Amino acid sequence: MALRAALKYKCVLSGLLSQQSSCSSHGRVCATPVLAAQRRNNSSSPKIAVDFDQSTGVAVMRLESPPVNSLSLDFLTELCISVEKLEMDKSCRGLILTSSQPKVFSAGLDITEMYGKSPERCGEFWRAVQEMWLKLYGSSMVTIAAINGSSPAGGCLMSLTCDYRIMADNPRYSIGLNETQLGIVAPFWFKDTMTNTVGQRTTEVALQLGLLYNPSEALKIGLVDQLVPEDQVLATATQTMTKWLAIPDHARAITKSMMRKPTIDKLTSNREADIQHFVNFITKDSIQKSLGMYMAMLKKRRV
Amino acid sequence: MALRAALKYKCVLSGLLSQQSSCSSHGRVCATPVLAAQRRNNSSSPKIAVDFDQSTGVAVMRLESPPVNSLSLDFLTELCISVEKLEMDKSCRGLILTSSQPKVFSAGLDITEMYGKSPERCGEFWRAVQEMWLKLYGSSMVTIAAINGSSPAGGCLMSLTCDYRIMADNPRYSIGLNETQLGIVAPFWFKDTMTNTVGQRTTEVALQLGLLYNPSEALKIGLVDQLVPEDQVLATATQTMTKWLAIPDHARAITKSMMRKPTIDKLTSNREADIQHFVNFITKDSIQKSLGMYMAMLKKRRV
Amino acid sequence: MALRAALKYKCVLSGLLSQQSSCSSHGRVCATPVLAAQRRNNSSSPKIAVDFDQSTGVAVMRLESPPVNSLSLDFLTELCISVEKLEMDKSCRGLILTSSQPKVFSAGLDITEMYGKSPERCGEFWRAVQEMWLKLYGSSMVTIAAINGSSPAGGCLMSLTCDYRIMADNPRYSIGLNETQLGIVAPFWFKDTMTNTVGQRTTEVALQLGLLYNPSEALKIGLVDQLVPEDQVLATATQTMTKWLAIPDHARAITKSMMRKPTIDKLTSNREADIQHFVNFITKDSIQKSLGMYMAMLKKRRV
Repeated sequence: MALRAALKYKCVLSGLLSQQSSCSSHGRVCATPVLAAQRRNNSSSPKIAVDFDQSTGVAVMRLESPPVNSLSLDFLTELCISVEKLEMDKSCRGLILTSSQPKVFSAGLDITEMYGKSPERCGEFWRAVQEMWLKLYGSSMVTIAAINGSSPAGGCLMSLTCDYRIMADNPRYSIGLNETQLGIVAPFWFKDTMTNTVGQRTTEVALQLGLLYNPSEALKIGLVDQLVPEDQVLATATQTMTKWLAIPDHARAITKSMMRKPTIDKLTSNREADIQHFVNFITKDSIQKSLGMYMAMLKKRRV
Repeated sequence: MALRAALKYKCVLSGLLSQQSSCSSHGRVCATPVLAAQRRNNSSSPKIAVDFDQSTGVAVMRLESPPVNSLSLDFLTELCISVEKLEMDKSCRGLILTSSQPKVFSAGLDITEMYGKSPERCGEFWRAVQEMWLKLYGSSMVTIAAINGSSPAGGCLMSLTCDYRIMADNPRYSIGLNETQLGIVAPFWFKDTMTNTVGQRTTEVALQLGLLYNPSEALKIGLVDQLVPEDQVLATATQTMTKWLAIPDHARAITKSMMRKPTIDKLTSNREADIQHFVNFITKDSIQKSLGMYMAMLKKRRV
Repeated sequence: MALRAALKYKCVLSGLLSQQSSCSSHGRVCATPVLAAQRRNNSSSPKIAVDFDQSTGVAVMRLESPPVNSLSLDFLTELCISVEKLEMDKSCRGLILTSSQPKVFSAGLDITEMYGKSPERCGEFWRAVQEMWLKLYGSSMVTIAAINGSSPAGGCLMSLTCDYRIMADNPRYSIGLNETQLGIVAPFWFKDTMTNTVGQRTTEVALQLGLLYNPSEALKIGLVDQLVPEDQVLATATQTMTKWLAIPDHARAITKSMMRKPTIDKLTSNREADIQHFVNFITKDSIQKSLGMYMAMLKKRRV
């Protein structure tokens, strides 16, 4: 069954991937070498670029892990370190998340992290996914997602952690938690985050069918807050940030925490069980087999 | 007070009933005699007809208890047995609920089961209502309501248990949890089911006023998902089912359970108290008196 | 930071205040001297006028504490006593809340009650705010807000406790929980009340930004239920009340309690901690300083 879904999903994602392959990565000048220089262990290059403007108190974090900003363990670790540094810097009040990759914000969890890996490694990976969510959803900074490309699965989750979502009005882009289409299940805290954003009923349908929405549909159900032409996504995010920063940080951050704490507490008090649950599921023979076939297909397609 | 409401309700329901009396029951050929042959105890004929198509994995369950598919103890028992059989049959992946009666999906709980009955019998009845809800709301199958007529009170509840609701676009039909209009109260799990579907605020108003919505209104608030011409309700349900069945069962069913489990757990852990609560309420002299007068009026109207 | 917000807020509120000063208070004949005569301690005049019509079972409660119906300790005490009297009078089935002051329903909590006061007095004040909310949100009567003017902060909260909200369609009026704009935080039960009305996501944005909505915006997000021309607010409330009173009281009140009890229980079981939390916050030097500067500005503006 998972296979059949994988075949469908292939069309969605590999369509995206094949588009990517024909696009060269954009050059980008990093204005804040201190933060942008962060890199982890033996990864060859930083996957996250941070431009922090001291004068405005706003950091722009660009995801730049070609081709599709997959959330690998390295990527997630670097992201968490970057967010934590900004969080601890009291002069940083706002964070804009966007992508350096053309056509994609983030394609979600890196499937290679879940295939043929030891339970220990799978657990380490899942802990990093949790950490990313905890850091972003619980951030005291104003967080805005400048969604300048498709954002399925984990990419959608990352967007949902932000206070506000601005998406490029390009009908070829899509966003949603489409896990079931791959035969896997979005965990309860993905579900909770979506429910907090679009409500119980819309989430029930969206998660069961693994729906991916185009920007207009996403706006209609409240999955994103605003659509703008593609070349204005970042500028609009910056303008919106100004509006949010006009509110006293202390009062706004307490209010944000009050709204999100119950959801965050659910994961923090069930973190180990959630990791165990994920590891047990993903290391199953049937799931591994489906993932393997899915990856083989992606590979074939890319050649 | 209840009487005043009963007088109003009479107009709604008896209007429906009088329409029924002028309509002959439709003949129906049962394609799957094995399941359709289910019947219970001394009830003269089956009240539920099940057509299960092995090739698609979809069962169509027709409610055929003239005149208005009232949810009697016999009816509920038969319904639960039918659902359970399908649930246990791994080849059955989807269930479409519809009515064989013209103009009505289900008129809701059978009032004769609540009038002049012993507390034990009332308790048995209520347990069956709970069971119907638990089986349908917790079903791992894809469930679609093909609402081809009015669906007040318990009929609305039954629709709300499904994954998707398609209603005939006939302005003479209505749907809603209108219990307060009869002077009775929808229990907490009716309320929870509606809240999960249309949200807290809409439910607060709808339940307090006992609102019945016409199809357009129901669509607007999300009480149903789609309206189609009356003669296309079942065909649309079948097409929609195909879409839902394209998702791997395992991932979809776990997702569904994750969304609904907290609501289901609330009833399962309070089941006996809920029965006792119902029995105490319904056997009150004042309530019995109101029900008696209401039934007398219905009878008069039908003669 | 709070100061910056205070400067902004000043424009909103003092604009309102300066408008008030040019308007004379409307004369009003009290039809029910028994209830209207309620007054408290040494306050010079009643701040609440109650007209109870025995023939309809409906009481109209007019807030008349010039210039802007600020929720002072005296005002809240009188309001609670009035509501309790009506609640205990079984012949009173419905309550309409409205304002006698032009252009404003209520400007919210009286800032002078929070500035330069002892912790004991601050605690007493906060207990009265809680009491007002508990009495109104938990009322078994049908409650309708006839919002004939602006209704920020505590005024919005008071509206939100009602079963139904009708607002004057005047684009100069606004409504919302704008606490963060003043550098303070709406407590959890303000948040819960708003969430129950407009949902989690809208509340998250509204509370973080301290948004004030004009009537059209408020209708769109469900913060109010209906807009009518200014001179028809009370008449529409009266007509709407008739519709609500057509439902049996007993069934409606049980349903209302079922919907709201979990939210009410959260405060009743955390009441003392909530008072302590408020007192600790409001008596902070930084907060007192901000409030002082804010009040000085308001004073200057009014001279």
